[in-house]
Amino acid sequence: MGRTARWRVLRISTQPAPGPAASGVHQPDLIVVEEPLEIRIGGEPLTVTMRTPGDDIDLAAGFLFTEGIVAAAADIAEIRMCDDNVADVSLRPGVVVASDRLRRNFLTTSACGVCGKQSIDTVRTRAGFDVTADPMLLAPETLAALPDRLRESQRLFARTGGLHAAAIFTADGTLVALREDVGRHNAVDKVIGWALRAARLPLTGAVLLVSGRASFELAQKALMAGIPVLAAVSAPSSLAVELAAEAGMTLVGFLRGGSMNAYTGAQRLLPVQAHA
Amino acid sequence: MGRTARWRVLRISTQPAPGPAASGVHQPDLIVVEEPLEIRIGGEPLTVTMRTPGDDIDLAAGFLFTEGIVAAAADIAEIRMCDDNVADVSLRPGVVVASDRLRRNFLTTSACGVCGKQSIDTVRTRAGFDVTADPMLLAPETLAALPDRLRESQRLFARTGGLHAAAIFTADGTLVALREDVGRHNAVDKVIGWALRAARLPLTGAVLLVSGRASFELAQKALMAGIPVLAAVSAPSSLAVELAAEAGMTLVGFLRGGSMNAYTGAQRLLPVQAHA
Repeated sequence: MGRTARWRVLRISTQPAPGPAASGVHQPDLIVVEEPLEIRIGGEPLTVTMRTPGDDIDLAAGFLFTEGIVAAAADIAEIRMCDDNVADVSLRPGVVVASDRLRRNFLTTSACGVCGKQSIDTVRTRAGFDVTADPMLLAPETLAALPDRLRESQRLFARTGGLHAAAIFTADGTLVALREDVGRHNAVDKVIGWALRAARLPLTGAVLLVSGRASFELAQKALMAGIPVLAAVSAPSSLAVELAAEAGMTLVGFLRGGSMNAYTGAQRLLPVQAHA
Repeated sequence: MGRTARWRVLRISTQPAPGPAASGVHQPDLIVVEEPLEIRIGGEPLTVTMRTPGDDIDLAAGFLFTEGIVAAAADIAEIRMCDDNVADVSLRPGVVVASDRLRRNFLTTSACGVCGKQSIDTVRTRAGFDVTADPMLLAPETLAALPDRLRESQRLFARTGGLHAAAIFTADGTLVALREDVGRHNAVDKVIGWALRAARLPLTGAVLLVSGRASFELAQKALMAGIPVLAAVSAPSSLAVELAAEAGMTLVGFLRGGSMNAYTGAQRLLPVQAHA
């Protein structure tokens, strides 16, 4: 299944310009594919997420891990695509996900990726890693260069103009992994699922860069993966900031045009080198 | 509960500039509030959505309607906030939402707002209105002017830089209602919930403008409200385009800078007036 689809559009410009007739021109356009992925555990439907096909095994693994349904890669015996749009997860013998608890948890949730919460009091998933003590240090100049690097590597975005991206970078700005998806939570789950399956968790010393805003759920997913620095091109929400502050995570927002706001954990940012 | 919160940030610029020291300046910042809203039916928890407080009654009503849980405003007897973050919905006597069906439906879903689906085959919610025959006609010049009008009216965005917006306009470009939220599906549910409660459904002759991308779920919610034209500032997804095509809805994307792409339903767009 492809990640892009062709569609014939009517391109209309209301501005005087040479070329296209005032009535518009019909032209081919590439659009990003969105399809539902059903995740099952042992054949039982668990959830449906609207995603861009590709890296579906990583997506399923990352979702189960960041939502606290499995605690480690070893809990998962196998993930099999039994259809283009259905991922069936087999848990290791002995790993029990109380089906009653699962049912009750998912009953009460439908927000983007904020799953497995039975009430508002328990909206926060407990992370197995503690990022507070991560001694990572980052040069703001390195951080400032990441959005361009992300954009250059977003192959699907370049072709369709329509995807979110999530990428893991090291402290010196090296790109480790990048995933794109119509859903920003899926992009994050794909990149964390990749790290989980590659035995790279916790992601100590890593920066997670997201192409849009930093919501509570993205901050929570980063925390579940032991990521000490979350950077967003756009604004963070209050709950993302509060969670980051509480967890000792560095949260940077409005990372664009060579500047940024550090909302929490500014002690991980080195002073800017004196301007020439 | 406020919609914005104050937070002290470290503002860092890596560019040579007069003013702030190279090490950054601490300054106050306004961030958009994100809090969970739990929606209950008759005291029973149904779902939790991460939203910006405000218009919560509209949000609950819009969610129940666009997800096909209630079929009309008359099905809802009362919506009461029993807490800042809990909306309890009482249905009219005689209105039955089979609790078993509800449980099973929500069990399988967690994607942004794509709720109440038991399998991929039923991911599409049946709309009670048919937009195919809506004879609305729109001047592209009117459409092209809407994003600026939206932005000018986005009071919270202007202060925080961090929200999605959804707005209803008439064919002549008059703004009817606008709602902002950290979640774009919530912004749409708030504006449709308002229309439902104001007895304005179906929204014949209306344009729904969204500040970001047009996903399947937004197209579906628009369709549930009988809206003939969905316009997005950014890209649509394949499934949004397919749904719009199937339902006879006009879908416009990349509506910015005076131009746009009509993906479906271009017959509702008038020719551009000859450029001077």
